[in-house]
Amino acid sequence: MKKIRVGIIGYGNLGKSIEQIVANDDSFKLVAVFSKRLVKSNYTVTDFPSNIGKYKNKIDVMFLCGGSSSNLMEQAKEALNYFCCIDAFDTHKNIPIHLKNCDTLAKENKKVAFCSFGWDPGLFSLMRVLFTSLGNPTYTAWGKGVSQGHSEAIRCIKGVKDATQYTVPNIKIIEQLKSGKLQRLENDKNLHLRECYIVAEPENRPGIIKKVIEMPNYFLGYQTKIRFIDEYKMQKHKNLFHAGEVFTVGNEMNFKLSLKSNPDFTAKVLVVYSKVLFKYYLSEQYGTYTILDIPFSHLLKNSEKLI
Amino acid sequence: MKKIRVGIIGYGNLGKSIEQIVANDDSFKLVAVFSKRLVKSNYTVTDFPSNIGKYKNKIDVMFLCGGSSSNLMEQAKEALNYFCCIDAFDTHKNIPIHLKNCDTLAKENKKVAFCSFGWDPGLFSLMRVLFTSLGNPTYTAWGKGVSQGHSEAIRCIKGVKDATQYTVPNIKIIEQLKSGKLQRLENDKNLHLRECYIVAEPENRPGIIKKVIEMPNYFLGYQTKIRFIDEYKMQKHKNLFHAGEVFTVGNEMNFKLSLKSNPDFTAKVLVVYSKVLFKYYLSEQYGTYTILDIPFSHLLKNSEKLI
Repeated sequence: MKKIRVGIIGYGNLGKSIEQIVANDDSFKLVAVFSKRLVKSNYTVTDFPSNIGKYKNKIDVMFLCGGSSSNLMEQAKEALNYFCCIDAFDTHKNIPIHLKNCDTLAKENKKVAFCSFGWDPGLFSLMRVLFTSLGNPTYTAWGKGVSQGHSEAIRCIKGVKDATQYTVPNIKIIEQLKSGKLQRLENDKNLHLRECYIVAEPENRPGIIKKVIEMPNYFLGYQTKIRFIDEYKMQKHKNLFHAGEVFTVGNEMNFKLSLKSNPDFTAKVLVVYSKVLFKYYLSEQYGTYTILDIPFSHLLKNSEKLI
Repeated sequence: MKKIRVGIIGYGNLGKSIEQIVANDDSFKLVAVFSKRLVKSNYTVTDFPSNIGKYKNKIDVMFLCGGSSSNLMEQAKEALNYFCCIDAFDTHKNIPIHLKNCDTLAKENKKVAFCSFGWDPGLFSLMRVLFTSLGNPTYTAWGKGVSQGHSEAIRCIKGVKDATQYTVPNIKIIEQLKSGKLQRLENDKNLHLRECYIVAEPENRPGIIKKVIEMPNYFLGYQTKIRFIDEYKMQKHKNLFHAGEVFTVGNEMNFKLSLKSNPDFTAKVLVVYSKVLFKYYLSEQYGTYTILDIPFSHLLKNSEKLI
C-alpha cells in the first residue's frame, strides 16, 4: 500500500510524540517537521510558514501541533492551501469558528481537515454525546493532571518564562454526583480547581496574576491558585501525566482515561485518525470533520469485524 | 415532525422496556405488540407471524425482541419483508450470518436494518474497536449480573421450567490486567465464572447439566456452576441488574456500565438508535448497519454541537 506522506507543524510535546509514532509506523513517510524554533529532529526542519508552499504535492497529511490559544488557527489557514490537515484544537468555545474556517478552505482546495481530535475534545466528546443521547445528565472531570492547553495559555502571557497548570478535580462533588446524592451542579466550574506554577520576575507578577485569573475560556470563573517558583523548582513540574472521566449522574455510564503522557496519547489518537483522513481524501470526501462524524468502522483494520 | 410508527415483536423483558419508553416519547406512535403468548399490554396484541403482513405500511420500524438463541433470526427474516427492523442480537459468533441475511433482505425490500445494538454487542463493541485501534490489548469483563441471553439459552433446554444465569467476573485476574502485572490472558474464558440457578424436575436434571455445560458459544469452556432450586426460591433470582467494563491492559482506558436494569438500558439504546434508523430510511440508505457504522453526530439533537 502507498505510504501516507506526512509533515508536522510545531515541534512541542505533541509534535515530538507524533514524530516518534509515525517514524515507527510503516504506513507513513515523515517528510518534514516545520518549526520556528531551532529544533533537534532527524527530519528536514524548515522555517514556517515561508517555505511551506514548496512541499505542495510532497506531503499528503499535515499534523498541526501549534497552540490553540496562539497560532493553531493561523497554521490551519496557511496549511490547508496545500495539504490535508489534522489537529487537536482544544479551545472549546472557538471550535465552531475554527471548523467553519477550515471547512471553507478544505472545500476550496479539495482537501480534508480533521479538527479537534484527541481526548478532549475527542474521545470525551464522543462519550458526552453518547451519554447525553441516552437521557443522562453527564459531567466531565479532568485531572489531576497537567493541562497542556492551560499551561501554554499562561506561557503566552508577557513576562512569563515558564508555567505548568494542574487541573485538580473536586473529588467530594464528583462522588456526590456519582452516588446520585447530588443530581445537578449549579456551576460546572466548581468541579475543578486550577493550580498554576509560574516562573517570572517579581516586578511582572502582579500583572501576570491579573491576566491569568481574568483569562476567558481558560481561568475566568474557576477557583485558581497561583504560585511563583524559580526555574530550578520548575523542573519538578515538567510532568506530562493527565487523567479524566466522563460520567453520568448515578454513574450508570463511566469512561475514564489515566494517561502517563497526555501528548503521547493525543498523538496516538491523531495518528490513528490520520489514516482515516487519508481514506476520506482518496475517496474525495473533501471538507471538515470532527470525531463525531467518523464511524468507528473506519478504525477497523482490513476485514476485521470486531463486534 | 412526523411520528415514527413502531411495533414490537416479542414481549419479554426487553419488549416491555421498549413499550414503556416509546409510549412516553412523543417521537413515536406505538402501533402494535406481537407475541405468541397471551400478554397484558395496552397496545394491539396480535398473533405472530400469521398477522404481521397486515401491518405493512402501518409500521415504520419494528423492534425485534425475541431471543437470540431461539427465534430472533427468524423474526428478522419475516419482519424485513414489511418493515425496517432494529434488534439486539447477541450471539457474537452468529452475528456475521445474521448481518448477511438481514442485508440481503433489507436491500431487496428497500428497508433499513440495525443489527446487534445494545451494550454488548453495542456500546462495548465501540469501545473494543476504539481501544484496539489505539494499539492497546483490550479485555471485556461482565458482571456480576444477570445475562438475559444466557438465562434464556438455558430456558430453551427441554425440561427447564425457569433459569437465571449470573456472569461473575474474576476480580483477581482483572486487577492483575489493570495493574499491568499480567500483560496477556492465555484463555479469555478464565475471566468469568457462570453461575446458573435452574428450576427442573429431578429426573431431568442430569440431562440439563450436560446440555448446559456443553452448550457452544454460551457455556462450553467456561467454569460453570449449576444449582437446582425450587420455583419459590427462584423469585429471589428475578434480578435485572448487570454490569461490565471494557479496559486496556494497564487500564489507560476504561469504559464501565453499572446497570440497575439490563433490559431497560438495552431498550434505551435501541430506542435512541431507532430514530437514527428512521433518518437512514427516509434518506433511502437501505441495507444493514451495526453500531460501528453510525457516526455519533447522528445522536445529536437538532443543531446541538457538543464537542
